[in-house]
Amino acid sequence: MAEFVVNPWEVRGNVDYEKLVTQFGTQHIDEKLLKRIEKHTGKLHYFLTRKIFFSHRDMNWILDEYEKGNKFFLYTGRAPSGPVHMGHIVPWMFTKWLQERFDVELWFQFPDEEKFLFKDDLTLEQTAKWGKENAYDIIALGFDPKKTHFIFDTLHANLMYKEACKVAKKITFSTAKAVFGFDNETNIGSIFYTAMQSVLAFLPSVLKGKNIPCLIPAAIDQDPHWRITRDVLPKLGYLKPAQIHGKFLSGLGGIMEQGKMSSSEEQTAIFATDSPKVVKEKIMKYAFSGGRDTVVEHRKLGGNPDVDVSYQWLTFFEEDDKKLKKIHDEYKSGKMLTGELKQILIDKLNEFLKEHQKKREKAKDQLEKFMLRD
Amino acid sequence: MAEFVVNPWEVRGNVDYEKLVTQFGTQHIDEKLLKRIEKHTGKLHYFLTRKIFFSHRDMNWILDEYEKGNKFFLYTGRAPSGPVHMGHIVPWMFTKWLQERFDVELWFQFPDEEKFLFKDDLTLEQTAKWGKENAYDIIALGFDPKKTHFIFDTLHANLMYKEACKVAKKITFSTAKAVFGFDNETNIGSIFYTAMQSVLAFLPSVLKGKNIPCLIPAAIDQDPHWRITRDVLPKLGYLKPAQIHGKFLSGLGGIMEQGKMSSSEEQTAIFATDSPKVVKEKIMKYAFSGGRDTVVEHRKLGGNPDVDVSYQWLTFFEEDDKKLKKIHDEYKSGKMLTGELKQILIDKLNEFLKEHQKKREKAKDQLEKFMLRD
Repeated sequence: MAEFVVNPWEVRGNVDYEKLVTQFGTQHIDEKLLKRIEKHTGKLHYFLTRKIFFSHRDMNWILDEYEKGNKFFLYTGRAPSGPVHMGHIVPWMFTKWLQERFDVELWFQFPDEEKFLFKDDLTLEQTAKWGKENAYDIIALGFDPKKTHFIFDTLHANLMYKEACKVAKKITFSTAKAVFGFDNETNIGSIFYTAMQSVLAFLPSVLKGKNIPCLIPAAIDQDPHWRITRDVLPKLGYLKPAQIHGKFLSGLGGIMEQGKMSSSEEQTAIFATDSPKVVKEKIMKYAFSGGRDTVVEHRKLGGNPDVDVSYQWLTFFEEDDKKLKKIHDEYKSGKMLTGELKQILIDKLNEFLKEHQKKREKAKDQLEKFMLRD
Repeated sequence: MAEFVVNPWEVRGNVDYEKLVTQFGTQHIDEKLLKRIEKHTGKLHYFLTRKIFFSHRDMNWILDEYEKGNKFFLYTGRAPSGPVHMGHIVPWMFTKWLQERFDVELWFQFPDEEKFLFKDDLTLEQTAKWGKENAYDIIALGFDPKKTHFIFDTLHANLMYKEACKVAKKITFSTAKAVFGFDNETNIGSIFYTAMQSVLAFLPSVLKGKNIPCLIPAAIDQDPHWRITRDVLPKLGYLKPAQIHGKFLSGLGGIMEQGKMSSSEEQTAIFATDSPKVVKEKIMKYAFSGGRDTVVEHRKLGGNPDVDVSYQWLTFFEEDDKKLKKIHDEYKSGKMLTGELKQILIDKLNEFLKEHQKKREKAKDQLEKFMLRD
């Protein structure tokens, strides 16, 4: 087993999710919980049945409260530093489904200072620009503007900073160091930052003057922040946020190469703004194949869908279980060649992106509707 | 020589200002500089001739620029945590004189999170309340509302936080640790705070889109913050702020007892809202005396104005040099008794406070005029 690293700033290696659950102290989403969710949502999202969203904290409490008529709100976010890629979109697709099925508010944070603080070469002008660009992608996914509030840390600092100070007072450098691996050379903005990320978990409670349960759907790399948040919020009289954790979409290089897709490795990421031609080229050229060296061998021995990136990606984007199973079986048996499998993924993504890009254009007029007014 | 401590959160012991100048690496205000200031201000403030404002950084540069027609702005502040006392008022009296004589803008910061972050038992509701109360005292001193801008960190965070992040990115935990004596148990809000205190030294330059020289009049205990500010601002393309440093007004217990007046030691502080009766009682009861044990002895040997708190305070509040000299000489010779000296101080303070309290009442309607609009 290759070593792996998962933290808010780095996901590297072949992630062992089983180990992560133990290491982070979260819970698996079991059949009983799935049934309980299904009672409220109707047909489960395939991200749940396929265990792409696989782990949680306090989901049963969220449902207890929900069943008492005490609705939660959703909180997720995006630290802008570059274009949105397919890996970012996965948890947002799931968040949108949760918003729809539970009919709840979403508070969406754009911590436009985070990547500025953590990356040497990034300016606040760049993160501001990407914040706007990324917001178009998020709007394009179809969130309900009446129930969705965008918060940009630097633009909403009048609301955020004061609350962040309350959190920060309860976190020592020791804790931040232990949780995030900071050292004496870490800048003091990076050290403070986690307090800003805690704020949205209770800001709606502050603004509405009553405690509202919070559910955070996100990839599991953000968990260290929420561990701190869960530790501090009760000390301030607020509720611990619940979480539901997703797995990472790998880069085209495959799970052994890259822990998750990275915008900085352009060749192996598919961006939300890529043209059909670019999508085709990238997948044909870079998608790691589970196929055999020759067609003859492949026909005889079959491919390996477990390591084949195109197949793995289809588990994220092909919603039809039957279609997916057919692809799996045909590829494994050798009936389907790598080129054919790649073409299925290309068609699937381009179909999605064609719609997405249309909606993204329309989203440019809608940003104001989503911005929280303070 | 007793040991002493001077930093933004503690001033203790008998401060050796000579040593501080060496230790902090600042410059004495010499005769040549006084003459140069006088050229622009006319008659020098007695705080300058009496060396109550005694040290500086880059005052000659400020005057160079001023003489070229490039006006500076003044920046000072008040971290609210309790009522204003006479020790706070000293640098503000001087700031007002600088504003008048140089005809310049003043940017006045109320870091209403600072004391909350550094003191366990203080809430943000309390610091907000004191911020307002303190603002009335500052307005009462007569600052020009057209040229004075009040900035509250939590209320103006939309302007402040983003700029603070730029500063924070350039400060490592090592630096903050070395300058402020932080350790692993320091909370991450306190660690970040110095970045917020740096912002006003360049915020006017940001808002006006050009570099404007900044002069900070303040007691010398704030110098550690400005050392960091001076280190970082050039890296961001802004000018280093110049400084002019004041000495501390001691508590009534005297310089050997208390480094500077402290609001938390109520008996030995005179507050801006104290009644004439309270002022009289406190001074009569607590003002450390340089007199002799008996009247007979005092008449014969004379008192010691150098350690007598009432006399020392008069050097801060009796503007008339001749009157002050007369008091000094009569007390030293034994002609004036401690009770008489105390009465002079009581009358002086009560005369000041009577006017101040009247103006303070009127100030309550004026706060909005002073608040910076963002």
